[in-house]
Amino acid sequence: MSDCPMCHRWDTDSDLRIIELPHSYVILNREQYFPGYTLLFTKVHATELFHLHRDVRGALMEEVCQVAQALFAVYQPAKINYELLGNMVPHIHWHIVPRFSSEPLWPRPIWAEQHDELHLPPDEYRRRIENIRSALL
Amino acid sequence: MSDCPMCHRWDTDSDLRIIELPHSYVILNREQYFPGYTLLFTKVHATELFHLHRDVRGALMEEVCQVAQALFAVYQPAKINYELLGNMVPHIHWHIVPRFSSEPLWPRPIWAEQHDELHLPPDEYRRRIENIRSALL
Repeated sequence: MSDCPMCHRWDTDSDLRIIELPHSYVILNREQYFPGYTLLFTKVHATELFHLHRDVRGALMEEVCQVAQALFAVYQPAKINYELLGNMVPHIHWHIVPRFSSEPLWPRPIWAEQHDELHLPPDEYRRRIENIRSALL
Repeated sequence: MSDCPMCHRWDTDSDLRIIELPHSYVILNREQYFPGYTLLFTKVHATELFHLHRDVRGALMEEVCQVAQALFAVYQPAKINYELLGNMVPHIHWHIVPRFSSEPLWPRPIWAEQHDELHLPPDEYRRRIENIRSALL
């Protein structure tokens, strides 16, 4: 049994599930200070993009783009931010974040300033998830 | 003539050139607080990954991975960070950054804390560039 929390995230965050894609799971980030902040993580446990087989990497990046495009359609942001870090949890997971010029942090990266975590009522999580899922299908 | 600074960056930062790849230019970031911090930007002016043709996007991501793998070989970091933001300069450019557990900011993102800009003597820029280029060839 893996100790990696990302290997279990599809189950532990089952209320945040957006969609299962061929190579990845996609969930809404529980912290929603940035509306629509989404996580996409690989089904396999892998650490670096260059550890994946080329075909899998290509397919994975298409999935990242599908999600980015869906977020763009739903939220009409100024920009999508795509980040693969993994310093704390070294299992490939993409932070895909719609960014708006109306934000206090704009145009800085989402990590540039501490802020309170914003959690939503369950209905609002469901509404955001449904909107993104609809744009993906 | 484009007003986009990234469209001119290969020329304006010509002393930082690492390599020209089929779809991108690769330069060392002038600010080297994070050793090996590299930028990879598209030859065409494009804003979002999903605006690219699928084949071009796939090839671009292979180039990102070649660079990441070369940085990994040269610097042997704990992790590579890959970030495509573009909030300030909306021309696709990847921040590809080797990260080390010995850093003051580890394991936080590179943007988590302000720090002085670290510029290097010309010889040291050249040495880093040569090392990365050698690992790419």
